[in-house]
Amino acid sequence: MNKNNFAAVPPMGWNSYDYYDTAVTEKDIKANADYMAKYLRKYGYEYVIVDIQWYAYGAGTQREFYQYIPFGKVEMDSYGRLLPCQERFPSSADGKGFGPLAAYVHEKGLKFGIHMMRGIPRDAAHRHLVIKGTDVSADIVADPASICDWNPDMYGLRDCPASQAYYDSLLELYASWGVDFIKCDDICNTHAYKERPYMGKHEIEMLHKAIEKSGRDIVLSLSPGPALLEQAAHYSTFANMWRITDDFWDSWELLQKMFIYCERWQYQVAAGCWPDCDMLPVGRIGKGFGKERDTNFTREEQKTMLTLWCLFRSPLMIGAELTKLDDWTFELLTNQELLEMMKGDYRPRQIRRDTESAVWMTDSVNNGSTVVAVFNMKEEENTVITDTEEWNRFGRLCVEKETKSVKDMWTQKEISMEEGRISVSLPAHGAAVFRVL
Amino acid sequence: MNKNNFAAVPPMGWNSYDYYDTAVTEKDIKANADYMAKYLRKYGYEYVIVDIQWYAYGAGTQREFYQYIPFGKVEMDSYGRLLPCQERFPSSADGKGFGPLAAYVHEKGLKFGIHMMRGIPRDAAHRHLVIKGTDVSADIVADPASICDWNPDMYGLRDCPASQAYYDSLLELYASWGVDFIKCDDICNTHAYKERPYMGKHEIEMLHKAIEKSGRDIVLSLSPGPALLEQAAHYSTFANMWRITDDFWDSWELLQKMFIYCERWQYQVAAGCWPDCDMLPVGRIGKGFGKERDTNFTREEQKTMLTLWCLFRSPLMIGAELTKLDDWTFELLTNQELLEMMKGDYRPRQIRRDTESAVWMTDSVNNGSTVVAVFNMKEEENTVITDTEEWNRFGRLCVEKETKSVKDMWTQKEISMEEGRISVSLPAHGAAVFRVL
Amino acid sequence: MNKNNFAAVPPMGWNSYDYYDTAVTEKDIKANADYMAKYLRKYGYEYVIVDIQWYAYGAGTQREFYQYIPFGKVEMDSYGRLLPCQERFPSSADGKGFGPLAAYVHEKGLKFGIHMMRGIPRDAAHRHLVIKGTDVSADIVADPASICDWNPDMYGLRDCPASQAYYDSLLELYASWGVDFIKCDDICNTHAYKERPYMGKHEIEMLHKAIEKSGRDIVLSLSPGPALLEQAAHYSTFANMWRITDDFWDSWELLQKMFIYCERWQYQVAAGCWPDCDMLPVGRIGKGFGKERDTNFTREEQKTMLTLWCLFRSPLMIGAELTKLDDWTFELLTNQELLEMMKGDYRPRQIRRDTESAVWMTDSVNNGSTVVAVFNMKEEENTVITDTEEWNRFGRLCVEKETKSVKDMWTQKEISMEEGRISVSLPAHGAAVFRVL
Amino acid sequence: MNKNNFAAVPPMGWNSYDYYDTAVTEKDIKANADYMAKYLRKYGYEYVIVDIQWYAYGAGTQREFYQYIPFGKVEMDSYGRLLPCQERFPSSADGKGFGPLAAYVHEKGLKFGIHMMRGIPRDAAHRHLVIKGTDVSADIVADPASICDWNPDMYGLRDCPASQAYYDSLLELYASWGVDFIKCDDICNTHAYKERPYMGKHEIEMLHKAIEKSGRDIVLSLSPGPALLEQAAHYSTFANMWRITDDFWDSWELLQKMFIYCERWQYQVAAGCWPDCDMLPVGRIGKGFGKERDTNFTREEQKTMLTLWCLFRSPLMIGAELTKLDDWTFELLTNQELLEMMKGDYRPRQIRRDTESAVWMTDSVNNGSTVVAVFNMKEEENTVITDTEEWNRFGRLCVEKETKSVKDMWTQKEISMEEGRISVSLPAHGAAVFRVL
Repeated sequence: MNKNNFAAVPPMGWNSYDYYDTAVTEKDIKANADYMAKYLRKYGYEYVIVDIQWYAYGAGTQREFYQYIPFGKVEMDSYGRLLPCQERFPSSADGKGFGPLAAYVHEKGLKFGIHMMRGIPRDAAHRHLVIKGTDVSADIVADPASICDWNPDMYGLRDCPASQAYYDSLLELYASWGVDFIKCDDICNTHAYKERPYMGKHEIEMLHKAIEKSGRDIVLSLSPGPALLEQAAHYSTFANMWRITDDFWDSWELLQKMFIYCERWQYQVAAGCWPDCDMLPVGRIGKGFGKERDTNFTREEQKTMLTLWCLFRSPLMIGAELTKLDDWTFELLTNQELLEMMKGDYRPRQIRRDTESAVWMTDSVNNGSTVVAVFNMKEEENTVITDTEEWNRFGRLCVEKETKSVKDMWTQKEISMEEGRISVSLPAHGAAVFRVL
Repeated sequence: MNKNNFAAVPPMGWNSYDYYDTAVTEKDIKANADYMAKYLRKYGYEYVIVDIQWYAYGAGTQREFYQYIPFGKVEMDSYGRLLPCQERFPSSADGKGFGPLAAYVHEKGLKFGIHMMRGIPRDAAHRHLVIKGTDVSADIVADPASICDWNPDMYGLRDCPASQAYYDSLLELYASWGVDFIKCDDICNTHAYKERPYMGKHEIEMLHKAIEKSGRDIVLSLSPGPALLEQAAHYSTFANMWRITDDFWDSWELLQKMFIYCERWQYQVAAGCWPDCDMLPVGRIGKGFGKERDTNFTREEQKTMLTLWCLFRSPLMIGAELTKLDDWTFELLTNQELLEMMKGDYRPRQIRRDTESAVWMTDSVNNGSTVVAVFNMKEEENTVITDTEEWNRFGRLCVEKETKSVKDMWTQKEISMEEGRISVSLPAHGAAVFRVL
Repeated sequence: MNKNNFAAVPPMGWNSYDYYDTAVTEKDIKANADYMAKYLRKYGYEYVIVDIQWYAYGAGTQREFYQYIPFGKVEMDSYGRLLPCQERFPSSADGKGFGPLAAYVHEKGLKFGIHMMRGIPRDAAHRHLVIKGTDVSADIVADPASICDWNPDMYGLRDCPASQAYYDSLLELYASWGVDFIKCDDICNTHAYKERPYMGKHEIEMLHKAIEKSGRDIVLSLSPGPALLEQAAHYSTFANMWRITDDFWDSWELLQKMFIYCERWQYQVAAGCWPDCDMLPVGRIGKGFGKERDTNFTREEQKTMLTLWCLFRSPLMIGAELTKLDDWTFELLTNQELLEMMKGDYRPRQIRRDTESAVWMTDSVNNGSTVVAVFNMKEEENTVITDTEEWNRFGRLCVEKETKSVKDMWTQKEISMEEGRISVSLPAHGAAVFRVL
Repeated sequence: MNKNNFAAVPPMGWNSYDYYDTAVTEKDIKANADYMAKYLRKYGYEYVIVDIQWYAYGAGTQREFYQYIPFGKVEMDSYGRLLPCQERFPSSADGKGFGPLAAYVHEKGLKFGIHMMRGIPRDAAHRHLVIKGTDVSADIVADPASICDWNPDMYGLRDCPASQAYYDSLLELYASWGVDFIKCDDICNTHAYKERPYMGKHEIEMLHKAIEKSGRDIVLSLSPGPALLEQAAHYSTFANMWRITDDFWDSWELLQKMFIYCERWQYQVAAGCWPDCDMLPVGRIGKGFGKERDTNFTREEQKTMLTLWCLFRSPLMIGAELTKLDDWTFELLTNQELLEMMKGDYRPRQIRRDTESAVWMTDSVNNGSTVVAVFNMKEEENTVITDTEEWNRFGRLCVEKETKSVKDMWTQKEISMEEGRISVSLPAHGAAVFRVL
């Protein structure tokens, strides 16, 4: 079993968080799955992810006070494993968990994913629940000082065999439901203790082992970021995706910062090992957060975002409520020329970046193909120039100077090239991307 | 009501921690109170303090794994207030709490104190217990992200009126028992979050208010240290004592470091405001920690410690099991000449300190008295010289050069003085202390 | 010799920096001295201080590029001691240094002070100049890694006897000129190396010794701040004043922050030991900085500033060009009732402080006097209430409840008092201060 | 011009530092070049590097006080460019600089390199020397606050055109001498200011441009480490090698730490972009440091070191005095099987690492070759097991389970393999390395 085969290309799909926050229901999941199967699957989108607190009763009902209600009621089995809240996920009744919903998604030809928090429920520890297949109770494995600073649900697990048994029991359950993807939170960067930002290191390894033991190809995605650069090898060895940024939303400031993160993480991009730029906050978002809106990004910024995500080969998880997707956004998300670079052996490289512009490239030795993107980081129109000399310094293929013109994948306009040099005029925060080989 | 009157001189007494750790019983407390009343009260020792986890069942029984058993059974009332563990404190049965034990101590002419942890029991929060006199439950006031990193029992309280109500209910209970002193832990320096070492600031103010509301003169002592120098005014305004060091034990390294802490905190020493050097690990200690022993300090080091504590006017809390006190240690703790400086308007000042020696002084304007102490910081014999010129630079009274000799309060030997200059030969880590006015 | 006698009360005077920056001349100094002698001396102002780079040629001529011209021409003797730039200080010709100017100031009944940078001129080190009275050259004592990050003139000195010899030679020269005050810079907080903010510790001790050797009572003032709280005893032992803030200018934000600094340093205020709030940026300031202006402070803010400085007993150094002083500012600076608290045995205490208001007090046991000040920290009108209970908790004297009214020292208006309680309405950022005993 | 072609494989050669410190002479350089040409060139060793302070008179003569004499005499031209000290490099007389020595080295079929410090000589700034081809003097471009904390010779350069002109003039000179390699110090990690560890960022770019302008293929090597992981793209874009460690010496602790550094930097290894593990402290070293010795490494540790360096493709710079090389060390450095992996398209990956063992691999798609190394991190004998499953997870080629045995490149012994699994017994700190494809 080789975890790099579970996600040989960057996962693409939809995640409930940006629109629903903690309050997504089975009905919502199905509606989005329906839409994806019908309109988006053909472009490569296939994962449907139920994000945080699917086990919590009352989730989202006290939004003016808390994002996560402390010490609230949760659905949990006698082994301390969280189960779907039956009010929101009625098909989970009678101990069926996410089995029926996963089956629904699978029937659509899609894959099913869920969110989880590192650790064991605090409530299980206080109640001394016994871990499945062991005679060890949760209070023994729960580390009372290992908490998440932004979510009150769990205690981290100590580094001991019974903790592995707990994760094994969890993944066994998830595999039995048919889960294809887990997004584990409070683990990629454990914010709570600034001086110990990787305190769940052993838990990452345990989750990896538990997946292997489960016998099911379950993609392991780690949150939140920013991931720790010095742990790059550890992420690559045990996980499939790891968030390189804190929560990403529809603000230019955050998008600008993503160029820095992508610069840093470009070398780690490999089959089964995907530095993750987070969900795409496009279309309709924010309802669960009490501020439903169209994305605050301009269209140019959205093109910049998609261009960067695709060249960098970040996983693409749509944040929008799919059933409300407008035509422009649909086109944005399904640019086939651009999505092509998510596949195969494309390898990204930043060519340069400063406060005014950025230039990226990606190439595929198998396809004999090289693609270049130019970005305008300024608040106003700006001309970005690039040439074969710099492409050839960073790429694996040689681009000859003789090319006469290239075509922007967004506008489909030809851009003329002279002696290997190209000059592109871009609107504020805009991007162009073109195949040069 | 003026909290500075509760402890107009530094509190002196005995604390159960150094000998018993978490496992002290009612019988032990009484035995030590008996001893204190009989032999030590006349020297000013009057507080008998029950230290940490008097509410916990099984405390100390899993010492090879934990100091504090996580998620263990505790005695707690329906308002979420911890009560004495009945197995160890049988007189607390029938809801009488520490009332009978406090009465026993009071009858001996002594004062009674207890330890407490900042916050509300985790268990109370998970069980949604309702706070006395309110309709607010513990899960509302408990901050799930405010924990102690070394003890698993409590959650810190949010800054809201119901939290004040909880502390009010606690102090009301303690006052009803007859408590004279509380040592509140995880509050002076909140280690858990290195970047927020004073996260219980509002809780200190709440405790102060709760004491005032209780109508009883209850000394407020804050732990653990090192206290934060930039919060000196805050401690002085709301507390009576605050620990300026992390846990102090019988090691020269720690004693040496105390000179630095005392240097830093000398300016804050005032009636009702006592920077605290922690318990005196003398005599028999360490039983509850599984390493019962005589103190590791040499006799010279012990004299150095007592000299510093007394000149600095640190509270004096004996760590030894009193019933096992040997004669030499008894003499050490009851040097009346030295203890004199704990009283009245004595004000300490460090004169100088380097890696080889230190010189301190203290003076009383009321008594017209000035006392000087010299310390040998070296591992070998060392001669320390000091003179009227430096005393007069730091003191409030003027010492004339004409004095002919002074007498060491430890050895009772005369030390000759010439032209205002005195030269004292001291053994390794030793001290001498003498009245110069 | 006792350095605490050099400045038994906080020094008061005028400093050239706020108006002239690096470009002050002998003529300017004399004009300000003339004014001070005529109008301000009677109120206690007596120091005339020549601030930074009096030795530099061309100082201030490249202000658009640098505050301090790097590697510029300086006046220096053959021992590596900086001398006044003759172009700006013509009376210093023929090796007379600041002698004639000091004499001029002394004749007016005033005291003369100068600025200096920690260390030895970089140029002296590169030129291997020999230190007076030794055969050691500057390159041996200069530490090439000990620099100031904001001024390029000097190297710090190594901790060795020849460094002491250099400082001795410097103070010998200054004493021969008749200098009464040195403001040594880059020493109180050595910014350059964030992790070594007290790298000139040994140089402070050397300066103290050099002053003692000089035989002249020269006040030692240390800059810049913020001073390090944990070094309070060190400052108190070796210096007379130390800056508790970074450069202070006419902004409410900085004034607000000063309340925090004063809270922290209140315990160190003592004869000869003055935590220093920096110059008073009132009247006409800023010319040398290319932005000559009237102070940006409102009148209320200026009253708040003077009230705080006087209660706290900060040294009072006027920043305004004195010859341009308007009547209102003159009155501000010469409030005799307020200046009274700079003298005798007044001891300040902060009573409380939050984001809306602050209350301070000071008392003199000798005078049997207690003074209270109330401050409005809000941007709008605000009522501040205070009472005898809190005064008596912090003061050394007891104020009885029977007082009927007090008088604001600024407005001279009576404020009524009822049952020991007083309620004062204050304009935005305003203050009132009144004697309660 | 593409800097990645200057060093398409990791540079190999000899560096004067480990044996000579600051005191190497022309004669020493020639002797080592002679040896290299005769015995080592055939194995790929070709660079002869003159390390630090070749411009300084008296270098090494005050070793008990300083490594680098502050403010000492240096050889410098009128443009502020340092020249070889004529006493140690007599052939540099008459303005010939390193031209004759470079020519000598070139005649031997070798390449010639020199060390340089970031910035411009302090002395040039103080003397206002004018930069070649400009009318700007050194005091204008030198940043007086940009210094090196361990070497007193230079000031960093401001980010301005005249600084570029200075570096251009420097590289023009070096190119005219025939320099093939510069090791620029105080630039990869600028220790002096902990909070600004990359303050020479613009200077790296300037050096790169100056090399391009010089028209000569000069390898750019940056020191000291540890390089900053978040600047990986910047190093890769502008330099050929960068030190990933602080100075490396012959201690197991440092060698152990190198495994961590190699883990972190493995993804950056590419043609023209070489993370650098520093010189090989083998054979006779330390003379200039006053402790001439044989390396403190055991033979096993040396094999571990060479194995790691070669698999990781670190540049290989011999630290030993070559003329004193013993046979065993010669064999160590010239293991052709191992050196093979320094060439072509080999790409390293750490497979795993813990406190007991480490496993690395490297593969060449062009050669169809995969090599695996196992390391024993323990102080005692230890068996390390590895198998095809993990190789195939990290490698680019597929190793079939059918292989029957492999051969250790150090011992030439066969190691049997069973069902794709191999078990190797290793002595303390030992290594084995074998081709599996």
